[in-house]
Amino acid sequence: GPVIEALVLLFCLSQSLLCPGPLDTASSGFLGNLLVVPMDGSHWVGIKAIAQEMGRRGHRVTVLIPEISIRMGPGKHYDTVTYPVPYDKAHIDSIMSSNKDMMQTSAHSFTEKIWKGFSKIQKITGFIHTTAESLLFNVSLISHLAQQNFDAVLTDPMVPTGSLIARKFGIPTINLLRGIPCSLDMKSAGCPSPPSYVPRFLTRYTDKMSFQERAFNTLVSTYSQITYALLCTFVHLCSVMPLTYRWLYWTEVLSESAIWLLRMDFTLEFPRPIMPNVVLVGGINCNVRHPLPEVRSWVSGEHGFVVFTLGTMLSDLPEETTSVFLEAFRQIPQKVIWRYTGQVPDSFPENVKLMKWVPQNDLLAHPGARAFITHAGSHGLFEGLCHAVPMVMMPIAGDQADNAVRFASRGAGVVLDIYSITTESLLQGLNEVINDTSYLMKKKLLKSRYKENMQKLPAVLDLNWLQYYCLDVIAVLATVVLFFVILIVKCLKLCLWKLSRKRKQD
Amino acid sequence: GPVIEALVLLFCLSQSLLCPGPLDTASSGFLGNLLVVPMDGSHWVGIKAIAQEMGRRGHRVTVLIPEISIRMGPGKHYDTVTYPVPYDKAHIDSIMSSNKDMMQTSAHSFTEKIWKGFSKIQKITGFIHTTAESLLFNVSLISHLAQQNFDAVLTDPMVPTGSLIARKFGIPTINLLRGIPCSLDMKSAGCPSPPSYVPRFLTRYTDKMSFQERAFNTLVSTYSQITYALLCTFVHLCSVMPLTYRWLYWTEVLSESAIWLLRMDFTLEFPRPIMPNVVLVGGINCNVRHPLPEVRSWVSGEHGFVVFTLGTMLSDLPEETTSVFLEAFRQIPQKVIWRYTGQVPDSFPENVKLMKWVPQNDLLAHPGARAFITHAGSHGLFEGLCHAVPMVMMPIAGDQADNAVRFASRGAGVVLDIYSITTESLLQGLNEVINDTSYLMKKKLLKSRYKENMQKLPAVLDLNWLQYYCLDVIAVLATVVLFFVILIVKCLKLCLWKLSRKRKQD
Repeated sequence: GPVIEALVLLFCLSQSLLCPGPLDTASSGFLGNLLVVPMDGSHWVGIKAIAQEMGRRGHRVTVLIPEISIRMGPGKHYDTVTYPVPYDKAHIDSIMSSNKDMMQTSAHSFTEKIWKGFSKIQKITGFIHTTAESLLFNVSLISHLAQQNFDAVLTDPMVPTGSLIARKFGIPTINLLRGIPCSLDMKSAGCPSPPSYVPRFLTRYTDKMSFQERAFNTLVSTYSQITYALLCTFVHLCSVMPLTYRWLYWTEVLSESAIWLLRMDFTLEFPRPIMPNVVLVGGINCNVRHPLPEVRSWVSGEHGFVVFTLGTMLSDLPEETTSVFLEAFRQIPQKVIWRYTGQVPDSFPENVKLMKWVPQNDLLAHPGARAFITHAGSHGLFEGLCHAVPMVMMPIAGDQADNAVRFASRGAGVVLDIYSITTESLLQGLNEVINDTSYLMKKKLLKSRYKENMQKLPAVLDLNWLQYYCLDVIAVLATVVLFFVILIVKCLKLCLWKLSRKRKQD
Repeated sequence: GPVIEALVLLFCLSQSLLCPGPLDTASSGFLGNLLVVPMDGSHWVGIKAIAQEMGRRGHRVTVLIPEISIRMGPGKHYDTVTYPVPYDKAHIDSIMSSNKDMMQTSAHSFTEKIWKGFSKIQKITGFIHTTAESLLFNVSLISHLAQQNFDAVLTDPMVPTGSLIARKFGIPTINLLRGIPCSLDMKSAGCPSPPSYVPRFLTRYTDKMSFQERAFNTLVSTYSQITYALLCTFVHLCSVMPLTYRWLYWTEVLSESAIWLLRMDFTLEFPRPIMPNVVLVGGINCNVRHPLPEVRSWVSGEHGFVVFTLGTMLSDLPEETTSVFLEAFRQIPQKVIWRYTGQVPDSFPENVKLMKWVPQNDLLAHPGARAFITHAGSHGLFEGLCHAVPMVMMPIAGDQADNAVRFASRGAGVVLDIYSITTESLLQGLNEVINDTSYLMKKKLLKSRYKENMQKLPAVLDLNWLQYYCLDVIAVLATVVLFFVILIVKCLKLCLWKLSRKRKQD
């Protein structure tokens, strides 16, 4: 049914530059009935693309959408079923504005920042939780859906709502995701992650580690349960726990997934083993589909243009940040297309065009695109990579900081701190990616490597068997432990001896 | 260059039923210069298909072929460069006839059989060795090739000639293969093979093993070096050693491969982790490309027809075996198309057509195909699987016996022993696959599973961490070892004690 169709489609989409055929072929007879349980925000982008394409190919596609959402909505090739939620648009707007609020805290104290950050996470997880419960506990809707004989559920497993529905209906789940913190995705998919060459999250190691690095990586990996508790519980427990009732349940539900479509690519990730039901679809959204009538005059200048978007969650900025950007744009010869929904400033440079929404991928695909100012969300980064546009990255939340470091380390752009940005630093960053020819060369190289990524050899091949099994690490760690045990025993003995001697003297 | 092109092509070919687009699209500008170092026999089939398709897409493709070969030759879309070899066609014919000879030994004694088998392997490995040396030590040809700036080498790494040339030229290697004995392919590609759910070669275990099975599998895996020596040295050392000078060198050369295109599929293999440069292309040869003018009248009967081929290495049979087959065919209503190059018997049934070559895949794709009598080579089995034709499998050599057991265990056909075949057993096998409706159902199921194979969940997900790391196995094995160590120590002590007492008494 749709499971296979989705897979083949995604194989081809991810190889879109060379393999455009299947998009135009008629449906091949495997008509299916697909239920889609999406996540809001940027997570909606990839899911919507698949829902549309599946519908266009003649499948019946039903998308479950809350009555009120950030950006989810109907499409040409799928049906939507909405369900009531106990919040209104104003509540969503207040959550969205928390990112803008965060920007304004630069003047505030450290504790205020921490508090703001905490309250932001609490707001978002509470929101996710409420949305999920509104669907899962909507008995009449669930029983209505149960009668419709769906073949599979397509979902984003960051929140396991879709997975829980699939489990209830006894049908397979297809996951589309960027990743789940604490490597829950790899763990649930059963992919082995030998600590000898698979660097752990947050270590910032590469796949070629020194002995010390391998030792630390092994420790992090061994105590992953503790890392879990320390790093992930806070973020996830609040939103997930009430849905799944017990902690283990989540990986249990996730491990039943039929297919994992991961929006990643081995140009950026280090080679590591994956299971056969894990399919890499990074760049799935790079296909150019639309002409650019609305902005044609803007993209035809001799100096080209800069694309500037900060993603779904941040389309508005505090006044002082906005003027920092405008002042920089006034000083460059390029035109700027900026996705901005906030207050329009009284005067702004002639070369800047503010738009409430921009056709980001189509703009980046245009040969006039010189730079991409981005919050380093994975969709945007892959689009920049596919079309070889160098990037000025300003990570805001989630995986963005990690993404930015990886892309920058591979020569795809520079990273700036949006919370402390100045006109000078922005101009310097733009100048570096637009005028530094080595950047353009690196970008071209990376673009070709993005297609040739299979050629990168796994680091495991450089390890001897002692290193592979971390036996050297284990030996050293065991020696250290033994040393301390002996030390403690000796100390205790000494204490006891002194104590007993003292008693005798008494 | 051609590396990417080949990859994308093969992705699409392996998904051919749903993804036919790219075959008809024009070349996308990545024109490359590909050197092809093929292996002879059935190994040539897949390599030739890629060479043809790459040439058709506008790449420059050069295929290195010995002056005298079993079936390698020129094609429409690639150039061939031939090199002299110190043997003649008669030598090849004598090697080919050794399979027929083996059939005639059924009357002979056990030692004679062993001796014939040994001499057959010796002949084949000697032949491979001579061919490889003729190319590698042809200094003028190699230096001529070195000047042609090839981008990559496409080869079958069962014999590392191509890999060694790629190493010499400093260009990437693309492997197309079914597998290398002793899992040298997985080892060289760096794919982890945890013994807790990856069954070892020759154990015949599935991925769900009992404690005893896991214990044995772990032992086999731990002592893989010994298994190496015991099982693989004999077969491979003779042909490979003189080329690579030292044993380790082979895995060293292989581990430098850029891409592994494996002609396998997870419908038949148990889910296991693979590295990103390993691409599964089982079924690559299932594409139907040719009409069937020559045999049209033969395939249109109401009872359908049976396809009978025993592969490149056995197109001729001893007279008594031939008459066993003919007698069986006389008694079935189906027509039979038999690839047979041997002596044509004086009288044979009207429903049998002997041909020197058959369009095997096109015949199997015809809706009239009722059964496929095959030696269980991987190309043929995938073609049977793709087109859902049940199979009567008669394995002869190499991986064929293993293939046959896997396909049979999944309901794709029955296995018969060609060395002891009778008219009755053949009739029974044919009847079972042609008339047993449960077979047809299983086949249809398998056909759909072949496309939905991603849905099969890895067995690793059913293991707890004790089982995953084989800690239970290690504990038991350690206890056993400890028990024996204690036992031996006690015995020694007893002996020493008795000895010393005796001495004292003396």
